[in-house]
Amino acid sequence: MKQHATLLIKCEDRRGLVAAVSKLLSEHGINIIDLQQHSDEQGLFFQRILFDMTEMDISREQLESLLDIECGRLQMDWRVAYKDTKQRVAIFVSKYEHCIYDLLLRHRIGELDCEIPLVISNHEDLRAFSEGFGIPYHVFPITKDTKAEQEAKEIALLREYDIDLIVMARYMQILSDQMIETFPQQIINIHHSTLPAFKGAKPYHQAHERGVKLVGATAHYATTDLDEGPIIAQGVEHCSHADDVDDLIRKGRDVERVTLAKAVRAHLDERIIVEGRRTVVF
Amino acid sequence: MKQHATLLIKCEDRRGLVAAVSKLLSEHGINIIDLQQHSDEQGLFFQRILFDMTEMDISREQLESLLDIECGRLQMDWRVAYKDTKQRVAIFVSKYEHCIYDLLLRHRIGELDCEIPLVISNHEDLRAFSEGFGIPYHVFPITKDTKAEQEAKEIALLREYDIDLIVMARYMQILSDQMIETFPQQIINIHHSTLPAFKGAKPYHQAHERGVKLVGATAHYATTDLDEGPIIAQGVEHCSHADDVDDLIRKGRDVERVTLAKAVRAHLDERIIVEGRRTVVF
Amino acid sequence: MKQHATLLIKCEDRRGLVAAVSKLLSEHGINIIDLQQHSDEQGLFFQRILFDMTEMDISREQLESLLDIECGRLQMDWRVAYKDTKQRVAIFVSKYEHCIYDLLLRHRIGELDCEIPLVISNHEDLRAFSEGFGIPYHVFPITKDTKAEQEAKEIALLREYDIDLIVMARYMQILSDQMIETFPQQIINIHHSTLPAFKGAKPYHQAHERGVKLVGATAHYATTDLDEGPIIAQGVEHCSHADDVDDLIRKGRDVERVTLAKAVRAHLDERIIVEGRRTVVF
Amino acid sequence: MKQHATLLIKCEDRRGLVAAVSKLLSEHGINIIDLQQHSDEQGLFFQRILFDMTEMDISREQLESLLDIECGRLQMDWRVAYKDTKQRVAIFVSKYEHCIYDLLLRHRIGELDCEIPLVISNHEDLRAFSEGFGIPYHVFPITKDTKAEQEAKEIALLREYDIDLIVMARYMQILSDQMIETFPQQIINIHHSTLPAFKGAKPYHQAHERGVKLVGATAHYATTDLDEGPIIAQGVEHCSHADDVDDLIRKGRDVERVTLAKAVRAHLDERIIVEGRRTVVF
Repeated sequence: MKQHATLLIKCEDRRGLVAAVSKLLSEHGINIIDLQQHSDEQGLFFQRILFDMTEMDISREQLESLLDIECGRLQMDWRVAYKDTKQRVAIFVSKYEHCIYDLLLRHRIGELDCEIPLVISNHEDLRAFSEGFGIPYHVFPITKDTKAEQEAKEIALLREYDIDLIVMARYMQILSDQMIETFPQQIINIHHSTLPAFKGAKPYHQAHERGVKLVGATAHYATTDLDEGPIIAQGVEHCSHADDVDDLIRKGRDVERVTLAKAVRAHLDERIIVEGRRTVVF
Repeated sequence: MKQHATLLIKCEDRRGLVAAVSKLLSEHGINIIDLQQHSDEQGLFFQRILFDMTEMDISREQLESLLDIECGRLQMDWRVAYKDTKQRVAIFVSKYEHCIYDLLLRHRIGELDCEIPLVISNHEDLRAFSEGFGIPYHVFPITKDTKAEQEAKEIALLREYDIDLIVMARYMQILSDQMIETFPQQIINIHHSTLPAFKGAKPYHQAHERGVKLVGATAHYATTDLDEGPIIAQGVEHCSHADDVDDLIRKGRDVERVTLAKAVRAHLDERIIVEGRRTVVF
Repeated sequence: MKQHATLLIKCEDRRGLVAAVSKLLSEHGINIIDLQQHSDEQGLFFQRILFDMTEMDISREQLESLLDIECGRLQMDWRVAYKDTKQRVAIFVSKYEHCIYDLLLRHRIGELDCEIPLVISNHEDLRAFSEGFGIPYHVFPITKDTKAEQEAKEIALLREYDIDLIVMARYMQILSDQMIETFPQQIINIHHSTLPAFKGAKPYHQAHERGVKLVGATAHYATTDLDEGPIIAQGVEHCSHADDVDDLIRKGRDVERVTLAKAVRAHLDERIIVEGRRTVVF
Repeated sequence: MKQHATLLIKCEDRRGLVAAVSKLLSEHGINIIDLQQHSDEQGLFFQRILFDMTEMDISREQLESLLDIECGRLQMDWRVAYKDTKQRVAIFVSKYEHCIYDLLLRHRIGELDCEIPLVISNHEDLRAFSEGFGIPYHVFPITKDTKAEQEAKEIALLREYDIDLIVMARYMQILSDQMIETFPQQIINIHHSTLPAFKGAKPYHQAHERGVKLVGATAHYATTDLDEGPIIAQGVEHCSHADDVDDLIRKGRDVERVTLAKAVRAHLDERIIVEGRRTVVF
């Protein structure tokens, strides 16, 4: 897998795009393993190519130069990611442990192809747990007054650790616009409802009060517009009158875990292209 | 099955309720086939008893008198329904045929234990279809000006046909308060989203615009507060970026059909007790 | 949509395949709308291209000649299908009506892009129903002694009607090898279990006896090895101790309908490539 | 919750059973919180009663004596379990960590109402992990020759720890008849397929070879007939041609975890009555 890479492309659709890019790759000894292409009703072209560079006859820098020229000519947004360059992920938590626990298990057994060099929290609660996995745990207590200052420190730390992706594993603070704009499309949040239902606080309580027959969760990129970011994955579980709020919370935990992991995995596998409020997830 | 009946009970919870009712039944030769009881966190008691009257040593009138006395003493809301008395169902439709088609197939093959003596519509479109099933089809074209008058006629017709349940099988008119209050907890509607998400018009368009990864449907009792009635059943199907609005509509049709049928079946099987905005569905 | 077509390709994987085919298309004014490519662990290459010929500068015959040359050179199995050439589908039924009913509704509302010029049955039961949809209904009663002879007549009739696909909508006869070999990968069957569980007769009875907590259905291409054909789609529904055999049959009907329709739709959309006992369903 | 208890009953169905038991309870100040009763087509009666003893006017011993007399008279199998008496659970593991990890997380956050005083394994691999949770880890390496002897030691240890339930969390050894008969209906296993499909070894490999479109898992009580024990819960996940064996294993892990936890929880909540090869799960 070391010689594998992924190329993601977004542009206005027109004839010859697949041919142009696949020709460029094949001319330099690159084999396409998996290709998915989608054109939407607004005339946009999206493409993901997973390719094998084992017999590539140029350097990665040369490949990127050629892509830059060709994609520039075709007015394509593009990015390439190499399998041997692992993304660096920071997990944000508060007090709930089920999501971080799930992510760390998946990481340990090889389901998440990344490094997790740090955990950031606004509480001490999960320190022992995190450090038990050998991951440094940084606490930034947050009050209304200290929020801006503490987030500035967090951003500095995230930069120091060279973080590519932030996963909010039930982190119970609203991130400031500054944080979100520093990491555009690099922050994944799990909201414990099937958005746009039950935005905001205490969605399981809202759901119980409304008497719904499904509980769900939504993984989405954080944007400055709370609970309105592009949705990556959603899941649900059936519930009934016999489920009180605690049962909804319990059932919801399973949905949250699976849905968040699915979204993080899609991000790490370079399967996601964001377009406005929507995502293409190949 | 002819000698089967269902007893539904709702009251404030206190000790001895199950014993009191089950004693009354067993003393008169009645055998309980299936019993489900639930007490909620607000201290309410809900119970459904399916029983066999084959060896009952009193008449139905006498049974009801005894229930009236005992349930009165215990301050229970109760109702009994006999399997050999079929509910009479009116289907309301506009132009979409998938839900009515589904209901009529289920009725034909014995999944819905009821009579369907008439179909009411605001359009002529499905007349041949309905009459092909041998069901009279009544059209009441509705404009803003004629609505009150036409609904009054509909109510008269529904009474003439002695209708117990109205199923809105994608009927594209908002019922007046008068209609809804005439048939309290006797009108089931299918809304094509997982309420409370995407209330109101064109939910699939809203869903597509929002970029969701699930489409769903909600069957609920109609109340005067639009899309806020007690939810009976909900269903979902996964979707992706590759699904345009037409695909969402297509996927949604399957969810609508199954969810509406599930709710109607639960109603006909006397499984539902309404409490405020919520339902107990045994 | 009239100028759309689908190209399906299967061959041994090697470098340059995507480029070669996409170049050929783009050189002749063809725009690729949707492309999916998959290489499996056995080194096989599978590709589906949906393309738009509105500005194609050659004829369809010329396109096919060019594909024949290029795909021949690259040792590709290929087939092209034009959206304006509808497949002709024959439905085989016995006495159960839910699957045929479902298919005909989907056809009527535009979910299945095909013609359905005839229904074949071994029983008279569904004649009125089929003819009510305006579809000729042919009965071939089958006994052990007459089977070969009757199937020969069926094959003649299917040829006369120029049938591309046979859908066994709960047809309760085992097709002879002769029939299956006459229509290779052109016969879709729905089996009422999640194969390979509960092969053979009465799977819902087997399932109930075994005490399973899921009922399911499997749509697959018919092969001469009964219930062993390549699987196209599978679905399930939860069940419980409260479900007797009739409940399993009822729940199963919904799964059968949806699963069969999904498979037929995938076939008609030219999304399926068969490889041995497996299918690639793009 | 301390004064809550569950009564499970199984017997031949006849009139007055619900009344007799509920009368006994209510006469002694016991309030029924939740009652579910089911009679099957073979004429068997199953009942679960969750009740509150806060105002019970007799001792637990007296209650049990009365139940013994009354249930004896009615030829009922019965058992009562008190919420304040936690079951003691031993987890058996080999090398896979996802199931035990999941169970221990659920235990920690209060989803599983039990004690977990020991882990037994045939390998050293998960010692640090188990001990990190503060749970003693006992290794019994097993070869063909040592199996009987090692299992005898395990049984002695399980008795010493007063174990009520054994959970085989992907324990990769077949238990001997002796072990199984020592703990009848007290051993829950998770098999990584939807039984009866893909019994025996390497079900995901079998599933991939067969080209299925669903992967699943089955939690069941272990019996001396391998993979034939009464099924408690089953789950599935969709898969496709794009999933190789490793993907099936990955997807399957999620299904295994959730399905096993669901079964263990049902057992601990005293929701399960076994009848032959089937379970009633209230």
